[in-house]
Amino acid sequence: MTLTDRTQLHRRPQRGSREEADVHAVLDAAFLAHVGFNMDGQPFVIPTLFGREGNTLYLHGSAASRMLRLLETGVAACVTVTLVDGLVLARSAFRHSMNYRSAVVFGTARKIEDPDRKSHALSVVVEHLIRGRWADVRKPNVQELKATTVLEFTIEEASAKVRTGGPVDDEEDYSLPAWAGVLPLSIVPGTPVPDERLAAGIEIPQHVSRFRGSAAE
Amino acid sequence: MTLTDRTQLHRRPQRGSREEADVHAVLDAAFLAHVGFNMDGQPFVIPTLFGREGNTLYLHGSAASRMLRLLETGVAACVTVTLVDGLVLARSAFRHSMNYRSAVVFGTARKIEDPDRKSHALSVVVEHLIRGRWADVRKPNVQELKATTVLEFTIEEASAKVRTGGPVDDEEDYSLPAWAGVLPLSIVPGTPVPDERLAAGIEIPQHVSRFRGSAAE
Repeated sequence: MTLTDRTQLHRRPQRGSREEADVHAVLDAAFLAHVGFNMDGQPFVIPTLFGREGNTLYLHGSAASRMLRLLETGVAACVTVTLVDGLVLARSAFRHSMNYRSAVVFGTARKIEDPDRKSHALSVVVEHLIRGRWADVRKPNVQELKATTVLEFTIEEASAKVRTGGPVDDEEDYSLPAWAGVLPLSIVPGTPVPDERLAAGIEIPQHVSRFRGSAAE
Repeated sequence: MTLTDRTQLHRRPQRGSREEADVHAVLDAAFLAHVGFNMDGQPFVIPTLFGREGNTLYLHGSAASRMLRLLETGVAACVTVTLVDGLVLARSAFRHSMNYRSAVVFGTARKIEDPDRKSHALSVVVEHLIRGRWADVRKPNVQELKATTVLEFTIEEASAKVRTGGPVDDEEDYSLPAWAGVLPLSIVPGTPVPDERLAAGIEIPQHVSRFRGSAAE
């Protein structure tokens, strides 16, 4: 990864990192990314799933997708992921904050043409989303691979930012009667809802009930 | 709001809407936005909190923020929010999907100079994040308002997209032995963590314990 002013951490540099391992850790904890690009001078931000392998992010979608058709031409793009870990509730409005982990990634994408590499990239996306799923499902056939565009997005430069901990109030505000602290937030799976046409006798697999380490109720 | 090709729903138009009420509903259900803009031709996507009032989004941050200093010049921007409601697990890899609600908003921002309007806008942001909080905390003073940039972002055009429901498999795949269904996901508050210096006798207020309708454990 290179280092330019794009990832220079001007604001609160103590919260930031341009280390590859830190960026990867944030990317791997998330499954939703927001992709930014320009179309005729207009910025767009589009949510999408992704997978990561080394310094490559895989993006996919319909071959008809306007976003993918633009990105595959190699235009500059930005992929950002954010995980909200909690609300930081201070005694003053000004000191309110958020505990979070985010990664802002710059790079360019290229279309994967080879069907085997496409299928592999899709397996990385599925496994990034829900580990253990790929082995259980029917793999994409030739027709499906043709209908799917898969891009490899090379991370050229990236930064991660993390805030943790409680509120920091001005000294004179600590005597105020307001409750202060952190309200932790996390994405939690609910009870899996079986498909209406699920055949009898198929149990909920562990990769669903134990999604990302959580026990679904 | 205007209607141009920016919000034309090319892919799966049945999932989309350009109705103001639908866009507002998605914006109000979320508290984190991803803001897209160009700096010297490079797209950036930056996460931020926001508030909504009518067709205006309020954004705020340090007066030193590069993003805000660019946005206040009135450059084209895109504000996107996404709520993930569940993983749609099909019998084939190709049919996997996500239940979600998203809004993609185009517009331009302007700096709010008047201190009273700034303070009001900040109250909208705080109340958007956690309703009931503003009344309990110390309001921003003159110095804090000076150190804060607050922008009003006018929604010029927007679209919302929603996917709900279970997987849709190819007919011949229904006999496969894979578990299929939806794994619901939601952002859930954990147990509030009081600040280390919280004065004795201050109880957790309802706006924290009942955050967005959930009972914190």
